[in-house]
Amino acid sequence: MSNPIRFVLCETSHPGNIGAAARAIKTMGFSDMVLVNPQRFPSTEAHARASGAADVLAAARVVDSLEEAVADCGLVVGTSARRRSLRWPELNPRECAATALDAADTRPVAIVFGTERSGLQNAQMDRCNALVYIPANPDYSSLNLAAAVQLIAYELRMAGEAPATSPEPEFPAATASDMEYFYEHLERVLTLSGFLKPDNPRHLMRKLRRMFNRTQPDEHEVQILRGMLAAVEPAGPPADSAESPADGDGSNSE
Amino acid sequence: MSNPIRFVLCETSHPGNIGAAARAIKTMGFSDMVLVNPQRFPSTEAHARASGAADVLAAARVVDSLEEAVADCGLVVGTSARRRSLRWPELNPRECAATALDAADTRPVAIVFGTERSGLQNAQMDRCNALVYIPANPDYSSLNLAAAVQLIAYELRMAGEAPATSPEPEFPAATASDMEYFYEHLERVLTLSGFLKPDNPRHLMRKLRRMFNRTQPDEHEVQILRGMLAAVEPAGPPADSAESPADGDGSNSE
Repeated sequence: MSNPIRFVLCETSHPGNIGAAARAIKTMGFSDMVLVNPQRFPSTEAHARASGAADVLAAARVVDSLEEAVADCGLVVGTSARRRSLRWPELNPRECAATALDAADTRPVAIVFGTERSGLQNAQMDRCNALVYIPANPDYSSLNLAAAVQLIAYELRMAGEAPATSPEPEFPAATASDMEYFYEHLERVLTLSGFLKPDNPRHLMRKLRRMFNRTQPDEHEVQILRGMLAAVEPAGPPADSAESPADGDGSNSE
Repeated sequence: MSNPIRFVLCETSHPGNIGAAARAIKTMGFSDMVLVNPQRFPSTEAHARASGAADVLAAARVVDSLEEAVADCGLVVGTSARRRSLRWPELNPRECAATALDAADTRPVAIVFGTERSGLQNAQMDRCNALVYIPANPDYSSLNLAAAVQLIAYELRMAGEAPATSPEPEFPAATASDMEYFYEHLERVLTLSGFLKPDNPRHLMRKLRRMFNRTQPDEHEVQILRGMLAAVEPAGPPADSAESPADGDGSNSE
């Protein structure tokens, strides 16, 4: 595993939980924590609960959006307290660990935790390649945030202790920000071509995001997809060709 | 499993940890908790941390000795933060879960947790049939008591769970022939748009096939993809619109 596994905590309400999560992360040998809009941080409560993991707290990065937290990641896994009807690949913590360790060969991996009260919002799940579901008592599935972090980190450690197997991938995974450029480009092409109704493109774009996130394209595949979009893009308002180096890199790269 | 798995907490110092342990036990579907000489119990702090697991706390039995706590058990497993030089069978939490579930067929099973500060004493370990060792960062193996309870309970639940059943998909998977129509359509659009070189389209088409096959789209997703292709298809040799009913079914189906 050559890249970090990042624990991303979104809009955490109780600073004590941030400290307990830092401790949980460190006990399992990890250290990369990112806080998206924590309600209070830094705080003495977080430090008290972190116990000997003050170094993890001190190094924690605070950012404004999940997008920023995962921009360089090749795999983003959201945690969910319940099964979703939508079509994300659904992993248990053990499967999540195996998948994450494989992916960390090429890019950082993010495991994303929602708020204590309501978990991840839909827009946050749209940024995820997969969801991990912690098995629990159906009558009382109320895991504490730090407990959920602990379980996921534990499975990652267990998976790391087993001998690894998968073959080396040909290209590194596309990053989350590569994917955002692709979705922007896709939305522009589909709007110009009349396929997306400009007044309500969200529903269809969510479906497309889910499908392509599930695919987990590598960076070369995203270049191909971008090249296809450039080739079929109808004449319209001038596109900002400087937005990404992938533009126009289509079949010529073959 | 016809007998309970019992969680035995010895001489716990902080009542908050008793509450958090009750919560951890209940989230994984267990309820049998025994407290050996807790420093303070009952306490408001324990109840606060137990959240919705007040029933587990209320039913917790308080006893004077570990001997009494495990008298009726057929298997007693002690938890240990570090490897012991002594010659107990040593299990990881996964092996512990499998062993415990087997044993619970005939007798109650006890998992025993020591104090926050120093774990189990030698005399307490002498009551154990085996030790379970939670893998941790060798430089910082300071798991919180409730976190250790959570991990052991989680592994017991994982071991007891029937093979996971995924949620019912919203739409059936696309058939292989749906996919062939899609690839034909994709190749035609990419050729007309100049993205595919007609003399050697195979290499790139193989990459695209690999990517979309990996996605395993459902039949609705393939309809969306076909609709997108129809929307961006350049004018060219007339397409055979009768080839598939999916043609032209794009955003209107949303």
